Amino acid sequence: MNTQFSPRVWPALFVALATLCSPLCSVLALAEMPSATEVLPSWNDGPAKRAIVDFVKATTDKSNPDFVPPEERIATFDQDGTLWVEHPMYSQVIYCLDRVPALVKAKPELANVEPFKTVLSGNREAMAKLSTHDLEKILFATLTGMTVDTFNAEAKKWTEEAKDSRWKRPYTELTYQPMQEVLSYLRANDFKTYIVTGGGQDFVRVYSVPPEQVVGSAGSTKYSYDQQGKPILTKEPKLLLNDNDAGKPEGIHLMIGRRPIAAFGNSTGDEQMLEYTGAGHGLRLKVLVLHDDAEREYAYGPAQGLPDTKVGAFTQDLYDEAKKDGWVVISMKKDWKCIFGFDSAAQCNK
Amino acid sequence: MNTQFSPRVWPALFVALATLCSPLCSVLALAEMPSATEVLPSWNDGPAKRAIVDFVKATTDKSNPDFVPPEERIATFDQDGTLWVEHPMYSQVIYCLDRVPALVKAKPELANVEPFKTVLSGNREAMAKLSTHDLEKILFATLTGMTVDTFNAEAKKWTEEAKDSRWKRPYTELTYQPMQEVLSYLRANDFKTYIVTGGGQDFVRVYSVPPEQVVGSAGSTKYSYDQQGKPILTKEPKLLLNDNDAGKPEGIHLMIGRRPIAAFGNSTGDEQMLEYTGAGHGLRLKVLVLHDDAEREYAYGPAQGLPDTKVGAFTQDLYDEAKKDGWVVISMKKDWKCIFGFDSAAQCNK
Repeated sequence: MNTQFSPRVWPALFVALATLCSPLCSVLALAEMPSATEVLPSWNDGPAKRAIVDFVKATTDKSNPDFVPPEERIATFDQDGTLWVEHPMYSQVIYCLDRVPALVKAKPELANVEPFKTVLSGNREAMAKLSTHDLEKILFATLTGMTVDTFNAEAKKWTEEAKDSRWKRPYTELTYQPMQEVLSYLRANDFKTYIVTGGGQDFVRVYSVPPEQVVGSAGSTKYSYDQQGKPILTKEPKLLLNDNDAGKPEGIHLMIGRRPIAAFGNSTGDEQMLEYTGAGHGLRLKVLVLHDDAEREYAYGPAQGLPDTKVGAFTQDLYDEAKKDGWVVISMKKDWKCIFGFDSAAQCNK
Repeated sequence: MNTQFSPRVWPALFVALATLCSPLCSVLALAEMPSATEVLPSWNDGPAKRAIVDFVKATTDKSNPDFVPPEERIATFDQDGTLWVEHPMYSQVIYCLDRVPALVKAKPELANVEPFKTVLSGNREAMAKLSTHDLEKILFATLTGMTVDTFNAEAKKWTEEAKDSRWKRPYTELTYQPMQEVLSYLRANDFKTYIVTGGGQDFVRVYSVPPEQVVGSAGSTKYSYDQQGKPILTKEPKLLLNDNDAGKPEGIHLMIGRRPIAAFGNSTGDEQMLEYTGAGHGLRLKVLVLHDDAEREYAYGPAQGLPDTKVGAFTQDLYDEAKKDGWVVISMKKDWKCIFGFDSAAQCNK
């Protein structure tokens, strides 16, 4: 019997069962209902789910030698590819490209200047060929030069209106339901959860609550006064923290000042964060998400023979380090019953 | 009747009263007992205490138009001179000077190099004449170059062992009892309290819990591996954030990402933090501590004719801005019944 039906479809199912089955059959159906208190309901039972649950049980049980006091229960999560979709391109890059027309409207002299001219043309093939240097120009032009308040308002509007091309939904809905369950499960067990992202700290803060628990690549701001004498903070084109690779543990120290006891990532940019987490005393949880589900999301590695990518690469070296050091590797295909909260209720075991 | 007796002396007092007084007298005594729920007990009733209490009542009462949801109740506190003593010199500078002998032991070639030679001599007059550049050399030499873990251990040991020359107590005990009561009062009302210090973030984190709620002047760290291949973070001599003056609102944005609704300081270095706090929508609390109590602590301004100082100056301009913009100025002499937690219980109304 399929046990993945949502509570919402149970009443109809019961009518059908009552008609077709003997009373014994109904009792069996009840016995297989997912428990209301089941943790991580959209996860299949398997080594990944067991590792997460075992870790939380051990670190929160006072009688366990691996018990960790609540104030030290810090868990860090990469954002792109770990909490939400990063393919075919990081959402923040799409935001920056989407901002170019408004930027050119404000500064018409940019219309014939590269790389803005190419972006305005809408030619996707040409845009895909933009160099890293071109992309940096676009990022600085669309993410700096305005006040913090103006940026927040613009980015918030975008997250509410823009939709991705595959699922036709706001990007904020493209978060992985099983990972949201992990976040909730940890918080319910007095963990303080942080997003530690290579993306822009201010950008991710716009849709992540609370903002003080977002560590990301951050530029400096400049304090001054507007024409009415009101204090303002302006975003400057100067990078303070590149929160990728070694920048992740460095950013964690800068912003949190404690070593995490659990860390979740999905790419080589998360390797040092997981190593740093693992190097502390006591039980530690290090987890990587492997995108091996081309049908329900995307498939890329290049670990395990998956297609190579420039966006969120998970190399075979990283896979080997994970296996050697006892890191958990989540197979999206095998470990997750569903991918998104908007998947059918039955898939997500709701 | 003196109502400043601590609950600890009440039993003895009752015996005395029962012997000397009529039953009516005992009832009167009870009526004048400080209530167990009295807030800010070591504050004298006056405009400063009333402003703090009124602000907390207004922002936490759902029926009040100035109500603020708990997640937005951010209060920031300067450290030196606002939460603890900063005269005759900032504690962190004393820490750095105290570290010089150990530094020279590890690097004997520094013994005859200035400014280390002067510090080693112990000649206080010569040390007082060290230039800012000399002091910077000492700060960089004693605060960087080691791993984060080594620094934390050294600084923690110092805070446990070192004693100030006037009160002969660990520096961490030189915190103002009335301000500790404000911190507790705010936290009890679901405020998240942050220290926002010009001092070193890592240094202040050593004795401030939780470390993730300390924003301070911060240097970069460098992630690498030790000889055993274990990940380490090393403190680098590169300043990322000078958390003074305009650096305070900039640091608040970097580390917290929300504008405070209440801010406490004591010097010109806090001016921009208070302005930035005040520039948000809705009710805001801006508070400055004026050190006008030479007898119980120190007296310095130069506002209001107090002696001038290079350590935590409170200028007349700042005083005038405070009065003009409705900021609260705390007079240590008039507003505080006691200064420290180790003052007599009666003084502190305990």
